[in-house]
Amino acid sequence: MKIGIIGLGLIGGSIGLSLRKSESYRVIGYDRNEIHRKEAYENGLVDEVVSFQDVQDVDILFLAIPVDGIIAVLKEFDNLKKDTTIIDLGSTKSDIAKAIPKNIREQFVLAHPMAGTEKSGPLSAFNGLYKDRVVVLCDLQDSSDFHNRRAENIFSELKMKLTKMDSDAHDCHTAWISHLPHIISFSLANSVMKQEDPRSILDLSAGGFRDMSRLAKSSPAMWKDISKQNRENLLKSIEFFEQELASFKESIRDEQWDKLQDKMQFANRLHDILK
Amino acid sequence: MKIGIIGLGLIGGSIGLSLRKSESYRVIGYDRNEIHRKEAYENGLVDEVVSFQDVQDVDILFLAIPVDGIIAVLKEFDNLKKDTTIIDLGSTKSDIAKAIPKNIREQFVLAHPMAGTEKSGPLSAFNGLYKDRVVVLCDLQDSSDFHNRRAENIFSELKMKLTKMDSDAHDCHTAWISHLPHIISFSLANSVMKQEDPRSILDLSAGGFRDMSRLAKSSPAMWKDISKQNRENLLKSIEFFEQELASFKESIRDEQWDKLQDKMQFANRLHDILK
Repeated sequence: MKIGIIGLGLIGGSIGLSLRKSESYRVIGYDRNEIHRKEAYENGLVDEVVSFQDVQDVDILFLAIPVDGIIAVLKEFDNLKKDTTIIDLGSTKSDIAKAIPKNIREQFVLAHPMAGTEKSGPLSAFNGLYKDRVVVLCDLQDSSDFHNRRAENIFSELKMKLTKMDSDAHDCHTAWISHLPHIISFSLANSVMKQEDPRSILDLSAGGFRDMSRLAKSSPAMWKDISKQNRENLLKSIEFFEQELASFKESIRDEQWDKLQDKMQFANRLHDILK
Repeated sequence: MKIGIIGLGLIGGSIGLSLRKSESYRVIGYDRNEIHRKEAYENGLVDEVVSFQDVQDVDILFLAIPVDGIIAVLKEFDNLKKDTTIIDLGSTKSDIAKAIPKNIREQFVLAHPMAGTEKSGPLSAFNGLYKDRVVVLCDLQDSSDFHNRRAENIFSELKMKLTKMDSDAHDCHTAWISHLPHIISFSLANSVMKQEDPRSILDLSAGGFRDMSRLAKSSPAMWKDISKQNRENLLKSIEFFEQELASFKESIRDEQWDKLQDKMQFANRLHDILK
């Protein structure tokens, strides 16, 4: 089976690495960045780096680029066959769903692998990124059974767990569980860097601050795009979080220590959800 | 050398475990919670569990209880010798520094090991918690050289890196780098649990949300105390963070995508501080 990957960074490169372990797949890739093309080939993420036109001539074509890029590239395809399955891996889904041209809608599968790190680029790709992680497949009623089955099979090959929902629900859930935490991490990192010197940050940051600021190292280009495409859900989640934080602040300000402890106790319930 | 530990949870228990590996130390402990006393002994955190009176009869006495407890216990000592070094391990320092009775001030060393996890209790203690971590020693001018040297030696024995500052500076820095991140994590956990069902949280939380919400599992009793004792610094840091988050929100609301990307780029500088 011939696999094409557009975008050879962490997401696309890790797919290439994982699939290349099996002899059933030949993986070709394209990236508009020349350095990325070179790094991807040299690090074995793909069997071959090809042109934008040639990468479309495959059985399954992954779009592993930022969400704005996906929408742009949808208008540029010029060498697709009708039986090629196109799978986008963007972090938001509604805007992409709306932008898919009618003539390729049936062969297009919207997917979001819940995997990634704060790193980006071909050198951050690794085998095993997807193992045991969830992939969300959206709006499957709009793709044909043939292409859905193919998508499900290839994600199973990557050892992923499948979840299905519509693209609007996806964007709403991920605003809370993924996009809001990123914006908070960026804001925390900036607050601390504006107030504290690097020496103190390095000396005093135990695991807590390191964890809370890890996402702040994420790619600005990618997260600007995600914020743009999931703007309304994201704004709602930020506003709700602001109120929650304000209520913690009020308990501290008004020295209502029992109330504060109750709120912390409520937060502890996460133990029961995420072991 | 005889070591006493008051409080046999994660912090005190891990000290016991580490020091017991060397034959030079005999470790005795006390905890006012009966179950903790039993668990601590059964899991080898101490050589012996003793009474509150007997635990004071040692060369070095560690106070490994929440900060309010430390201040309370300072008034209850009734069996201390003049050459016993007392080391508190609380997460805030100014209020404790003020509460130390004059007659034991010279033998008291204020320390804050920058180590811990979201877990608590004797069963969460582990050998290696302190290795290569920073310990902050405060107001050393107020303790005698003999006791300071002893404290430095015992932390070196635990393979910790020593940093010195005054207690007010400590509380200010830790508000930003440790206490603020905790309050944010509690608030994020509550926001998401109020808005999302457990199934979605479990399915969609990749590493990002897990990291950002880990601190929300921390002990409410301990973090209520810390918030109380570092109230003013903490309030200042929350307010500054609120402004920073509001500025991210405004860029998203007003669709100022370049501005948003600039702020994310600024956050990326953390790469240079925390590798």
